[in-house]
Amino acid sequence: MAWTVRALAETLGLEFTGDGATELARVASVEQAGPDCLTFVSRPSFLESLAETRAGAVILAPAHAERAHCAVLLAENPYAAYARAAQLLHPARVRPSGIHCSAIVDAGVRLADSVSIGPGAVVEEGAEIGPGAVISARAFVGAGARIGAESRLGEGSIVCHGCEVGRACTVQPGAVIGADGFGFARDGDAWVKIPQIGRVVIGDGVEIGANTTIDRGALDDTVIGDGVILDNQIQIAHNVRIGDHTAMAGCVGVAGSAVIGRRCTVGGAAVILGHLEIVDDVHITAMSLVTKSITLAGTYSSGTPLESNAEWRRNAARFRQLDTLARRVNALEKNKPGEES
Amino acid sequence: MAWTVRALAETLGLEFTGDGATELARVASVEQAGPDCLTFVSRPSFLESLAETRAGAVILAPAHAERAHCAVLLAENPYAAYARAAQLLHPARVRPSGIHCSAIVDAGVRLADSVSIGPGAVVEEGAEIGPGAVISARAFVGAGARIGAESRLGEGSIVCHGCEVGRACTVQPGAVIGADGFGFARDGDAWVKIPQIGRVVIGDGVEIGANTTIDRGALDDTVIGDGVILDNQIQIAHNVRIGDHTAMAGCVGVAGSAVIGRRCTVGGAAVILGHLEIVDDVHITAMSLVTKSITLAGTYSSGTPLESNAEWRRNAARFRQLDTLARRVNALEKNKPGEES
Amino acid sequence: MAWTVRALAETLGLEFTGDGATELARVASVEQAGPDCLTFVSRPSFLESLAETRAGAVILAPAHAERAHCAVLLAENPYAAYARAAQLLHPARVRPSGIHCSAIVDAGVRLADSVSIGPGAVVEEGAEIGPGAVISARAFVGAGARIGAESRLGEGSIVCHGCEVGRACTVQPGAVIGADGFGFARDGDAWVKIPQIGRVVIGDGVEIGANTTIDRGALDDTVIGDGVILDNQIQIAHNVRIGDHTAMAGCVGVAGSAVIGRRCTVGGAAVILGHLEIVDDVHITAMSLVTKSITLAGTYSSGTPLESNAEWRRNAARFRQLDTLARRVNALEKNKPGEES
Repeated sequence: MAWTVRALAETLGLEFTGDGATELARVASVEQAGPDCLTFVSRPSFLESLAETRAGAVILAPAHAERAHCAVLLAENPYAAYARAAQLLHPARVRPSGIHCSAIVDAGVRLADSVSIGPGAVVEEGAEIGPGAVISARAFVGAGARIGAESRLGEGSIVCHGCEVGRACTVQPGAVIGADGFGFARDGDAWVKIPQIGRVVIGDGVEIGANTTIDRGALDDTVIGDGVILDNQIQIAHNVRIGDHTAMAGCVGVAGSAVIGRRCTVGGAAVILGHLEIVDDVHITAMSLVTKSITLAGTYSSGTPLESNAEWRRNAARFRQLDTLARRVNALEKNKPGEES
Repeated sequence: MAWTVRALAETLGLEFTGDGATELARVASVEQAGPDCLTFVSRPSFLESLAETRAGAVILAPAHAERAHCAVLLAENPYAAYARAAQLLHPARVRPSGIHCSAIVDAGVRLADSVSIGPGAVVEEGAEIGPGAVISARAFVGAGARIGAESRLGEGSIVCHGCEVGRACTVQPGAVIGADGFGFARDGDAWVKIPQIGRVVIGDGVEIGANTTIDRGALDDTVIGDGVILDNQIQIAHNVRIGDHTAMAGCVGVAGSAVIGRRCTVGGAAVILGHLEIVDDVHITAMSLVTKSITLAGTYSSGTPLESNAEWRRNAARFRQLDTLARRVNALEKNKPGEES
Repeated sequence: MAWTVRALAETLGLEFTGDGATELARVASVEQAGPDCLTFVSRPSFLESLAETRAGAVILAPAHAERAHCAVLLAENPYAAYARAAQLLHPARVRPSGIHCSAIVDAGVRLADSVSIGPGAVVEEGAEIGPGAVISARAFVGAGARIGAESRLGEGSIVCHGCEVGRACTVQPGAVIGADGFGFARDGDAWVKIPQIGRVVIGDGVEIGANTTIDRGALDDTVIGDGVILDNQIQIAHNVRIGDHTAMAGCVGVAGSAVIGRRCTVGGAAVILGHLEIVDDVHITAMSLVTKSITLAGTYSSGTPLESNAEWRRNAARFRQLDTLARRVNALEKNKPGEES
């Protein structure tokens, strides 16, 4: 989908310099861009690469505009402007509206205009699909579930009965929204299952990654705020609440009833235990374990650094003696070597 | 589904006090319960909240019965009684028995009475589905697999050829039971695949979480005991054996041929390496790594506590010097500061 | 599928001793093998078990051939020879070639000879399926995707539009290849999605585990080399490149743009951060976190060893004081107890 520099600038509300008639067909990296490509540079350290780019246009902060010898789109936040430009140059695949003959859509489903329901998809009774929504091949929408306008359910994704997905959300393939929460009461040796009667309620503009799972609430709902982005293979347990614009990388696990603030970021494979609270603007680094509430914005970590296995073995063995070591240092400080404080 | 207090008490085999004619329509938390709600209190510290509840009835231990001003169901284990009462008030959605016209069921499949097979489900030749079992939309049952009475396969879940699921099991959506184990022999640079000819055999009353995977055995079977409960996104490798009533939280990984005892609990994202044995009643805390057999019941952990990233950086850097530090303390204790022992 | 010892030896290019007419129907462990079973011993420590085996034949290194009292297939690498023999004795289930009547295959799809497309599978326009490939029940092949000769897509697996799977690959059930990479630009509080226009390109002889996810590239492709083996529940982010014959155990996560060498092994639940490089022949132990490039072949680890929770609590508390402790030891070495260096 070709755009001129001028048309892009107008649509995105940006100023530009250079030849506004330059036609752009796609985005590319600075190194690989050709004359029909749009690229961007946001970090000053990459500005030097502009000298050799063959790009037709580049998005730059106004302060760096003079560094390019091609057309320039001026943006205070070049990366965000690039993202929006890329959406225009590379729109999501258009799905023909209508219901594929092999889809199984209950008679009582409320379908808005321009809905696309793909081959083998299943939509149960009482579900509601908003205008322009796409239910891809083999996706499943359970009884009474609601899918908001312009949202897309990827291939084979599952939205269980009664759950709600907001507007302009993307659910990647294989995600499962609204399976039973893991609620059991112990009775002697056995576990007695507690019916999970809450829902999952997902806000607007949310991204849910491939094979990510979000469980329905036990009594109340599991709630995902507006603009939340979740990568692949994430597990969100029942009754979790995630604040607006929080982002989680792949393989994160969040246990039941955790409440996570807005604008947080959670690194890959980090785990957040249940029944705790994390305030806004908290950042958890990859593979950290959060065992207590976090009441102060900031960055938090746990774990040990990577080492050669030989060094690690020596140090890890000492970890098991760490309390004793500390006591021995206490004793030394009291000038009584060898005696424990 | 409304129940009177008296009917609930009789069905659950519990005594009650107060108005047995009180009608209960659903369960709710103590705070949110209305007059048609059943609630419960199990921890003494929550007893004070009873003063203000509007619940129609509450489940309490006999010792606390006088604390409520509504009908009381008396149970030694209020939480377990609550779970059972909730099952009665909120029964699983009834699925019409019969085979949906879009399901693909091989002619040679043995279907018991009252089986429900949903839209787009696939059941291959020689499979056996027990009475009252539910095969949800788009679920897959492979050739010769057996699904026990009253078990439910969630939407899009997969039970591969020859595997067995016991009675009254719940397999959540997207779970995969019986994919090939990860068995390869190294030959120079290359890996040669070893056919995985064992099965997965799952006991009775087992819960398998959404997108959880349980691999088939290499030669023998992978075995999941009765009453085991597995949360979402868990990986169980080939030839693992899990004892009855063991519970695993989300994102746990268990490597090949590990043998895990009964009544164990494994915290979220913990990993258990292969070819080791864990006795009964072992508890592993979240994100711990089990690298050796555990021969004594108890609770086990690994990892480091969460800190601010600034503090963590300082301490983690010292972890790499830990063996040296310990040697320096040895030297100090010998009154030879600075000299290594 | 029965083979004589002689036929197996000829097919595998191995010498044998003993009765070449011995008929073998299956493989089994040394302990459980009967007269129609083939077994193997590769580790000298297991040679004693040969005295009591009832196996019809055993694969041994030539040096140990005299230890068996049954037929012996001689192989320098008994385990690899066993794997190949097991493939002959237990061939993958033959799928009838042809398209199941319930599969939805676009008119424009290019299907080679002997392709098998199972019930409920969906193959979109412009896809290409190579000779002998198997698309199992409910699998999905997106528009323009290519599946190489003799490759198998498991039940419910998903290969998104434009992605390529090489020859003789196995994609286990529930795997998702080619979902969008997790690419977003921050704009104030919000995240702006960056279209992911790259593909996933998978080499020959690759194994992809159940529910594993491999994201498509942002601009360039995500590339999986020949002979790579990936276990279940692995997450491979956009633009990752994995070298030939590298193996990853279950639950591993690899973040965006990481480049991993050839013949590496990555233990279960290890995490590799993004935009780093790992050379050939690196081995990462289970649950380690790789935060920097690794430029030297070898084995690497992070984490702390498992302890009883009581001991762990004491030691973990000291970890938070580790920098202070080290400073106190510095001070002691300067003979100024209590004073920080």
